[in-house]
Amino acid sequence: MAEKAVFDHAGCVVCVDAERRFAAALDSKFYDVDVVHLGEDKARIAEAEAAGVKSVPAFVIDGNVYHINHGADLSALR
Amino acid sequence: MAEKAVFDHAGCVVCVDAERRFAAALDSKFYDVDVVHLGEDKARIAEAEAAGVKSVPAFVIDGNVYHINHGADLSALR
Repeated sequence: MAEKAVFDHAGCVVCVDAERRFAAALDSKFYDVDVVHLGEDKARIAEAEAAGVKSVPAFVIDGNVYHINHGADLSALR
Repeated sequence: MAEKAVFDHAGCVVCVDAERRFAAALDSKFYDVDVVHLGEDKARIAEAEAAGVKSVPAFVIDGNVYHINHGADLSALR
């Protein structure tokens, strides 16, 4: 079964690029990707923060955070 | 045709995890992934540096660098 992967982003240029390069290109056999726009879905900022997300774009997979480059600090999205 | 994606790493814990999570999970329809161990293949450090890689693990795709978390600075691998 595919594992859940949350891709947190904020619509920024760095985020959109990472979404295209990675979130959209991961094999669906491995991951079921949940793309979350934290700028539009502020209710999920707390979830990202609790997982350890410091900035976007970032993936959260099985409790681990993978920051890809740096688009925006999470604190800037509140 | 699949695009070339170079995954630079150094065998570190952060690198191995990123390789499993991303390099091995990218859909081969999108990317032909070239996994490069810069600790063992030092001849390719210059190539990584020229591409803009500052630390590993990192992907280089179409001239763009994607640093995923931080395992080791490139300077530590020379």
